[in-house]
Amino acid sequence: MALLVMKFGGSSVADAEAMRRVAQRVVAAHRAGDRVAVVVSAMGDTTDDLLDLAGQIATGAPPQREMDMLLSAGERISMALLAMAIEQLGVPARSYTGAQAGMRTDTAHGRARLLDVQPDRVRRTLEDGAVAIVAGFQGISTDDDITTLGRGGSDTTAVALAAALHADVCEIYTDVDGLYTADPRIVPSARRVTRITIEETLEMAAHGAKILHLRAVEYARRFQVPLHVRSSFSDQEGTWILVGRPLTEDTMEEPIISGIAHDTSLGKITAVGIPDRPGAAAAVIGAVSQAGVSIDMIVQNVSTTDAETSDISFTLPESDGQTAVAAVRGLQEQMGFADVLWTSHVGKLSLVGAGMRSNPSVASRLFSALADAGVNIEMISTSEIRISVICDQSDLQEAVRSVHTAFDLDAEEEAVVYGGTGR
Amino acid sequence: MALLVMKFGGSSVADAEAMRRVAQRVVAAHRAGDRVAVVVSAMGDTTDDLLDLAGQIATGAPPQREMDMLLSAGERISMALLAMAIEQLGVPARSYTGAQAGMRTDTAHGRARLLDVQPDRVRRTLEDGAVAIVAGFQGISTDDDITTLGRGGSDTTAVALAAALHADVCEIYTDVDGLYTADPRIVPSARRVTRITIEETLEMAAHGAKILHLRAVEYARRFQVPLHVRSSFSDQEGTWILVGRPLTEDTMEEPIISGIAHDTSLGKITAVGIPDRPGAAAAVIGAVSQAGVSIDMIVQNVSTTDAETSDISFTLPESDGQTAVAAVRGLQEQMGFADVLWTSHVGKLSLVGAGMRSNPSVASRLFSALADAGVNIEMISTSEIRISVICDQSDLQEAVRSVHTAFDLDAEEEAVVYGGTGR
Repeated sequence: MALLVMKFGGSSVADAEAMRRVAQRVVAAHRAGDRVAVVVSAMGDTTDDLLDLAGQIATGAPPQREMDMLLSAGERISMALLAMAIEQLGVPARSYTGAQAGMRTDTAHGRARLLDVQPDRVRRTLEDGAVAIVAGFQGISTDDDITTLGRGGSDTTAVALAAALHADVCEIYTDVDGLYTADPRIVPSARRVTRITIEETLEMAAHGAKILHLRAVEYARRFQVPLHVRSSFSDQEGTWILVGRPLTEDTMEEPIISGIAHDTSLGKITAVGIPDRPGAAAAVIGAVSQAGVSIDMIVQNVSTTDAETSDISFTLPESDGQTAVAAVRGLQEQMGFADVLWTSHVGKLSLVGAGMRSNPSVASRLFSALADAGVNIEMISTSEIRISVICDQSDLQEAVRSVHTAFDLDAEEEAVVYGGTGR
Repeated sequence: MALLVMKFGGSSVADAEAMRRVAQRVVAAHRAGDRVAVVVSAMGDTTDDLLDLAGQIATGAPPQREMDMLLSAGERISMALLAMAIEQLGVPARSYTGAQAGMRTDTAHGRARLLDVQPDRVRRTLEDGAVAIVAGFQGISTDDDITTLGRGGSDTTAVALAAALHADVCEIYTDVDGLYTADPRIVPSARRVTRITIEETLEMAAHGAKILHLRAVEYARRFQVPLHVRSSFSDQEGTWILVGRPLTEDTMEEPIISGIAHDTSLGKITAVGIPDRPGAAAAVIGAVSQAGVSIDMIVQNVSTTDAETSDISFTLPESDGQTAVAAVRGLQEQMGFADVLWTSHVGKLSLVGAGMRSNPSVASRLFSALADAGVNIEMISTSEIRISVICDQSDLQEAVRSVHTAFDLDAEEEAVVYGGTGR
């Protein structure tokens, strides 16, 4: 008898029909003898409808505390209906709000972080032989106010609940059937990954893969929660994301590369001709951080125009471009550098694979593939299990396809692509 | 500086425009120096939409616990939006769920009763100079489950909050501008009552007047909460419902009759020819009560057909007719009575007025008026401040109009009648 946490996103519970399908799946697992806790998001369009109502009332940003109160109504509706659908099939079910499920957060409305998870009522419900349904995305703050966890919040709820319950697995149901070696919309020959380590998934999520939210993966890694990402439309197994999988022996047959992530949400700033003295990079990056912008990749090199100076380039979310440019320009006179350049629409390709740390040929194979495809590399950064390159965004799709082929990742058959992003 | 509780029903917050109007009214009171706590119902159609969703999921009665979870989402939406609308006008506002506002109930889902009200957070919010908004209709049970209070629940929340805060007044905003001497849809010359005692209001509510729910009035009476029922569409004063108003001197000018309530929701059962022995009535009424039916009026008299037997008649909610008839028939053989008669669609007229206890002519004036109108009286019951008669439902409207005129209640001008029932 296993203890499962099953997480269903908004598209999986979009209407009564979809809700019944989810209920059948939950009941099947329950009848097979597993104890089942379900985490559910708001139904399909509910959040948009609520945001629309708020937009009709408030010009400008509405108070975040009240926005959280408003949005948290969405999961109440979906979870109560799902409980009814499960009871309809003859299995007892009880739904719990974030507060009732013991999801204690900090007070940062709209992007709260979990501080403590005490799902005592969920545990008792499972011991009673009933299905427990928990509202995703929401919690209660240390001030006893309703909070929401921000983007990817329901995945985080599911992983946190699985960790607290010591669940055997946290199943994330989406509208795709697992993680792919690349985005199947760009690389039709992308293969579904059967198994992947949590570290690789973390790198994939951090560098543009969209199926699982970074924060949920970080949580899963910290609390050693095995994840299974799978389709809510089929019974086929998806991708197992495993903690501490030995990478040396029983994975010999697996490719050393797990997949290719890409990211089109970034821009690039270059401070040109910074006089070469200690602390220059720290000053530039410090000013940007103080402006509240998180930086992605940083490269510093001797200037191409003047050997006594250097250039510092960094990538950042495109939406933060203006803020960051202003912050860097504020240093220009004092530090005496030549110019600040802004490039919108850069592309980032990341090759991820636990195998690459012991395989020095990976980088050269990557660069050759890009060169053969005529893609100019603007920046490079590496970790032990990832190499990322920045290129022109217009080259990105071709770059992903070329690298996918170069690393023998192509499948025999084309992947089936569904509509949504499955978050 | 007064402390007000203002309660707005679903039609007062049906859309963004209505919500803004309510916000302006709340802000005006706040700016005038009052401390304001608001109780709000779900927006116009929200409850119907949620019930419709539940109907799509569950055939038969859905689990009540989950139904309460579902319906409680409605007030979250309306109260968060109202908070936004108030903040939009520059006044700080914070919304609280039933649980956050300290509304502790028993565990009877769908019709929970308040056990304890501890609105500490509401009190602190008012002390901070902000407007507090509380979800009507909902609470949290002694098992920490979400409950709803059933029909009239938001009025009850408002009165309970006003009692706990020792508010100066609980203002009930509706789509009519107060209590009338009779239903203006039946008696166009009905007058708005300026002041009325809580006891009279209780009799009016208990016997068919629909503006205030009986339960809220009972609560107001027990905790001595002054109520002011008024229109959400105008600034005109409505009806003050006062606790302990002296009835002897300063009310000399007021009519001894406060108003006429009518009720069309009743049916009547008569057990005919019950052998006249002690305990017969108790046996019949006991059987009906045990079947879960609440009885309205009871009359026992010597049978018209046989002096050795008597007839027992009682009125009850028409919807409980079948259940009650079956319960009475179950006694027929054992008790040896002749027959059980069921009359659907009886009408009840109740004349209410604190003045009548010292004025014996009221009853005869009532009966004369009915006789002149050709209305046949089937049953009579009285309390110190009320006389009720049962008649044929087809005679009821004419009866109400005749009695209204006979007691000099007619106004010079016709009342303005709005659409809803204002609950």
